[in-house]
Amino acid sequence: MKIAFLGLGNMGSAIATNLVKAGHEVTAYNRTRSKAEALQAHGARVAHTPSEAASTAEIVISMLANDAALEQVMFAADGALAAMKAGSIHISMSTISVSLAERLAQAHHDRGQHFISAPVFGRPEAAEQAKLFIVAAGPQNALRKCGVLFSAIGQRTFNVGEKPSSANVAKLGGNFLIAVTIEGFAEALTLGRKHGLDPKIYFDVLTETLFGSPAAKTYGSRIARDNHEPVGFLLPLGLKDIRLTLAAAESVAVPMPFASVIRDQMLHALARGMENADWSAFARVAAENAGM
Amino acid sequence: MKIAFLGLGNMGSAIATNLVKAGHEVTAYNRTRSKAEALQAHGARVAHTPSEAASTAEIVISMLANDAALEQVMFAADGALAAMKAGSIHISMSTISVSLAERLAQAHHDRGQHFISAPVFGRPEAAEQAKLFIVAAGPQNALRKCGVLFSAIGQRTFNVGEKPSSANVAKLGGNFLIAVTIEGFAEALTLGRKHGLDPKIYFDVLTETLFGSPAAKTYGSRIARDNHEPVGFLLPLGLKDIRLTLAAAESVAVPMPFASVIRDQMLHALARGMENADWSAFARVAAENAGM
Amino acid sequence: MKIAFLGLGNMGSAIATNLVKAGHEVTAYNRTRSKAEALQAHGARVAHTPSEAASTAEIVISMLANDAALEQVMFAADGALAAMKAGSIHISMSTISVSLAERLAQAHHDRGQHFISAPVFGRPEAAEQAKLFIVAAGPQNALRKCGVLFSAIGQRTFNVGEKPSSANVAKLGGNFLIAVTIEGFAEALTLGRKHGLDPKIYFDVLTETLFGSPAAKTYGSRIARDNHEPVGFLLPLGLKDIRLTLAAAESVAVPMPFASVIRDQMLHALARGMENADWSAFARVAAENAGM
Amino acid sequence: MKIAFLGLGNMGSAIATNLVKAGHEVTAYNRTRSKAEALQAHGARVAHTPSEAASTAEIVISMLANDAALEQVMFAADGALAAMKAGSIHISMSTISVSLAERLAQAHHDRGQHFISAPVFGRPEAAEQAKLFIVAAGPQNALRKCGVLFSAIGQRTFNVGEKPSSANVAKLGGNFLIAVTIEGFAEALTLGRKHGLDPKIYFDVLTETLFGSPAAKTYGSRIARDNHEPVGFLLPLGLKDIRLTLAAAESVAVPMPFASVIRDQMLHALARGMENADWSAFARVAAENAGM
Repeated sequence: MKIAFLGLGNMGSAIATNLVKAGHEVTAYNRTRSKAEALQAHGARVAHTPSEAASTAEIVISMLANDAALEQVMFAADGALAAMKAGSIHISMSTISVSLAERLAQAHHDRGQHFISAPVFGRPEAAEQAKLFIVAAGPQNALRKCGVLFSAIGQRTFNVGEKPSSANVAKLGGNFLIAVTIEGFAEALTLGRKHGLDPKIYFDVLTETLFGSPAAKTYGSRIARDNHEPVGFLLPLGLKDIRLTLAAAESVAVPMPFASVIRDQMLHALARGMENADWSAFARVAAENAGM
Repeated sequence: MKIAFLGLGNMGSAIATNLVKAGHEVTAYNRTRSKAEALQAHGARVAHTPSEAASTAEIVISMLANDAALEQVMFAADGALAAMKAGSIHISMSTISVSLAERLAQAHHDRGQHFISAPVFGRPEAAEQAKLFIVAAGPQNALRKCGVLFSAIGQRTFNVGEKPSSANVAKLGGNFLIAVTIEGFAEALTLGRKHGLDPKIYFDVLTETLFGSPAAKTYGSRIARDNHEPVGFLLPLGLKDIRLTLAAAESVAVPMPFASVIRDQMLHALARGMENADWSAFARVAAENAGM
Repeated sequence: MKIAFLGLGNMGSAIATNLVKAGHEVTAYNRTRSKAEALQAHGARVAHTPSEAASTAEIVISMLANDAALEQVMFAADGALAAMKAGSIHISMSTISVSLAERLAQAHHDRGQHFISAPVFGRPEAAEQAKLFIVAAGPQNALRKCGVLFSAIGQRTFNVGEKPSSANVAKLGGNFLIAVTIEGFAEALTLGRKHGLDPKIYFDVLTETLFGSPAAKTYGSRIARDNHEPVGFLLPLGLKDIRLTLAAAESVAVPMPFASVIRDQMLHALARGMENADWSAFARVAAENAGM
Repeated sequence: MKIAFLGLGNMGSAIATNLVKAGHEVTAYNRTRSKAEALQAHGARVAHTPSEAASTAEIVISMLANDAALEQVMFAADGALAAMKAGSIHISMSTISVSLAERLAQAHHDRGQHFISAPVFGRPEAAEQAKLFIVAAGPQNALRKCGVLFSAIGQRTFNVGEKPSSANVAKLGGNFLIAVTIEGFAEALTLGRKHGLDPKIYFDVLTETLFGSPAAKTYGSRIARDNHEPVGFLLPLGLKDIRLTLAAAESVAVPMPFASVIRDQMLHALARGMENADWSAFARVAAENAGM
C-alpha cells in the first residue's frame, strides 16, 4: 500500500521501518529532516511537507509527540488534511486528546476521507520488534483495510468500536493504569522498606503471587531496584497523558481521585527537578515523602 | 506433627482439613463449636478451649478474623499462650496488625516459645485446593521446621526474614495492592463506559496487554461485569485491612495517598449500605460518583 | 473619564452603573444588546461592536464570563484591541486564566497600550453597593490613573505588583480558598451531623470562635441550613475557576492536593445533576457520600 | 467549689490558676509533682494521687495530653473514678477520642456520678487570660452547676447538647478546620509565591477580604512569614487529633477526603524530621513539594 508516514521519533521510526520491511511504499515526513533520511536507507521516500507526503497516499499514518504537533501536520497550510485524496484513510497512532480525535474525525468526514484512531501500547523496543498492542477504532470498513498494516507492526489489534475517539479513551485509561501501578508499588514498597523488608524480595512476593502483570514487572522492578534507567518515556510526557486523562474524564463528569493523586505526585517530581527522568521515577516521591 | 488449630472460619476450615488429610494430628478449637465438629468427620479432635488445644501441641496455628479474636484466644485466662510448651511454635496466619505481631513475638519469646507470622494470599477456593501463597517470617529454624506444613496447604512459601511482623507488613501491602487494582480498574472502566466503550471489551484490552495480573483478572472482571457475587471477602474486612495498613504506615511515618483514597471510597460504600457486599463492590463508588 | 465597558452580565451591569453614577462617560457593549440598553436608561451610550466602543475610550474595562468570551471581544475582527488608542488602558476584571492575562499583557504592550488585571471579590449584591474588593496589578502609572474608577466601584483596592497576571493568580487562589471553606465546612458539619450535633448550633460554635471569616459565614451557613438558594455563582463556573487554578499551578509545578479533592467533588456534583446549582451546593457531596 | 484538678501541662496550669484566683478550693494532681507545687504558690493543695485529689471534690476537672493519660488517672488502681463521690461531676477538658468519652459517660453513670465533656479552643496564652472558648455537652443540670467555673476560665461557653461525646466531636471537627486552614493557606500562598506574589501582601489580600478568621490570621501569618515559632502545639499532637477525627468519622461511615490529605501531609512532615515543630509547620510540605 502507498503510505505517508508523518512523525519519526523513536516510536514512529521503528513503526515506519517495519512497514517498509513488509513491502509497503512509504513516503516519510519529519520536521527534522535528518530522521527521515535515516529511513531512506531502508527504502522510504522523503517528503518536504506533510502535504507532499499525503497527496498520493492511500493511507496517512501520524505518530507525533502531542496534540500541537499533530494539529500542525494536519491543519497547517502545508498540512496533510487538504492534500489527502477522497477515500483515503488517516490512522492516528499518537496518544492525543479525545477532543482532538473528535475534531479530526469530523474534519476527515467533511472531506470524504476516513479517520481511524489507533494508539499503541509498548515502549520503543516493542515497536522495533513489531510487538506493539494496537487499540483501534473507526469506520469498520476502513479498519478492515488497515488490518495488514497493523499485522506488520504489532502483535495484536483490539477493535474497540466505530467511534475513533474510543480508542484514545482506551489508551489514556491504559496509561493511567500504568501510573496507578507505579504509585501503587511505590507506596507498598516504601511501606515495606521502612519496616525492614528487602524491596527485591517483596517485589518477588508481589509479582509472583497476585500482581504479576507486564506493567507491574516492568515498572515495579524499577521501583524495587530504585533505578529508573534507561529513560524510555519522559516524565513530562507522562504528566501530559494524565492531564489528557483528567480532561477526558472532566468532559463527561467522571471524578478520578487516583488520577488526581498521580498528577500531584508527578508535579512534585517535576518541582524536584525530574523533568529528564523516565516517568517511572515519580515513584521516588512516595519514598522521599517517607523520608527515604 | 501435633497441631492445635484455632479458628475455623472459611479459610481456617479449609486449611485445617488439608493438614488432617496430610496425616497430621490436629486438635481444633473454634468459638462456635459446631464448626469444629464438622472437622471431626475428617479425623480431627475437638478441644473446648484454646488452652486445652495448645497444651500438647508442637505447633499452634491461629486463623482468626481480627486482632481482637486472636488476642482473646491467646491472652485470655483459657488462652493458648500460657498453655503452650517451651520450644513449641505459634504460626499466626491471620491478617493482623503489625503491632499485635510485635506483641506476640515478644510474649512468645519471653516464654521460650517461637512465633512465626505466616499470612496467606488466596480466597477460600484456593485454601481448599491447597493453593495458597504463604508469606512467612520468623526465626529461621522454626520456619524450616514448619516447611512440611506449609507444603500441605499452599503452592508456594515466601520467606521474608527473621522478624515476624515483616510478613504482616508484606500481607497488608498486598491487600492494599488488591484494593489499588479495584479502584484503578473502577476509575478506568468508568471513564471508558461514560465515553461509550464496552466495559467487557475494554477489560479484555487491558488484561490481555499490560495489566493481566491474577488480581486484575479476578477483580477487574467483577467490575467489568458490574457483578460482585459471590461474596468471598466482606467489605468491612477489607476496610479493616486498609485501616491496619494505614496504621502500619503511620507508625513509621509513611504517607500513602492511594490508601487514603481507598479508605474514603470504602467508607462511602459502607455509608451507602454495602456492609454485606464483597469488598470488590466498593468499585461501585467510582461509577456512582460519575452518575452511573 | 471616557470608558468603554465590555460585558454586561450581573457583575458587569452593576459595575458599569456605578461608573455612570460617578459621572464617567460610559459606552457599553454587550453581545446581547438588550442588556446594554438597560444601561442606557442610566445615561450610558451603546456601541454595536467592541471596536466601536473602544475606539474613543481612555479606559476599556472588560468583565466577561470566561477566557473565550474575552478573547472574542479583544482579538476578533471587530474586537477592541486593534481599535484602542495608543496610551489607553485595558482593565480586565474577569476571572481569567493566567496564560490569557500574559498574552493580553504582551499584545497591549506591543501596541503601546497598557494592561491592568483587576479581578474582584464579591457577589452581585456587593457590586451593586460598590463594595467590591479589587485586586489589581499592572504598570504602576496606569494603576494610579485608574484609582478614581476603582473607588467608584469597590470598597478597597489591593495593589499586588507590576505584573498583571499576579492579580489573576491572587484571585484564583482566593476562589480556591472559598472552595476550601465549602469543603472544610461540609466535612466538619457532616461529621457533626452523623454524631447527632445540630448543624446550626455547630455552625455557630465554629464561626463564633476561630472560623468566623466572611467566606465561612456566607458559605458555611448555606451548608448548615442545607439550602443553597439563591443561586449567585453557578457550579460549572466554580469548576472552571478550580480548573484555571490547577492549570496555573501546573505551569509552575505546584501540587495542590486540596484543589484536586475539590475538583473531584465538583465533578461528582455535576454527575449528580447539579449544573444549575450555586457552587456552594457541591457541599452536598460530602453529605451524600456519608449516606445523608 | 471544691475542685480536683488533674493534669497541669501548659493548658491545665493556666486554667487551674484561674480557678484558684476565682476563689475556688483546688486540689491539684500532676504526674510530675513539681508542676503541682508551682500551683501551690497560688493557694492550691497538692495531692499524691488522682484518687486522693478526687475523694473530697464536688468537681473533678481533667486536662491531659491524650486518651492514655486520661485513662490512667481515671481507671488505674489509684485513679479518680472509684474515689469520686456519688453526685459529683467529672469535667473532661482534653481533646480525647469520641470512644473514650462514651466509655467515661457510661462508667460515671454506672456509679451515680455525672460526666461532662468540655474541650476548649485556645492556645496557652488564651488560657492564661481566661479567654478560652468552651464547648460543653452533658446532663443539663450538671452543666448549669458548672457555669460559674466556665466563666472563670473562658470568654464563652457553647452548650452543644446532652450527650457528652458531642462536645468531643465538635472539638475534633474544629481542630480539623484549623488544619484545613493551614493546608488551604499553604497551597494558596505557595501558588502565589511561585508566580511571584509577595506572600505578606497576598496574606493581607486574603485576610482583609473574605478569609479573615482568627484561625486564618494566626496560622496564615505564620505561613506567610514562613516562620513557625514559637511552638504552641506540637505537630505529633496535631496528627493525633486528625487521627481521632478520622476514627470518629470512620465509626459513623463519613469519608473526609480533606482530613486524609492533611494526615498524609503531616506524616510527610514527620518523616522530614518536624516532630518538635509547631503543627502549623506542616505547611512547609506544600512549599517543599513545589520545590521551594
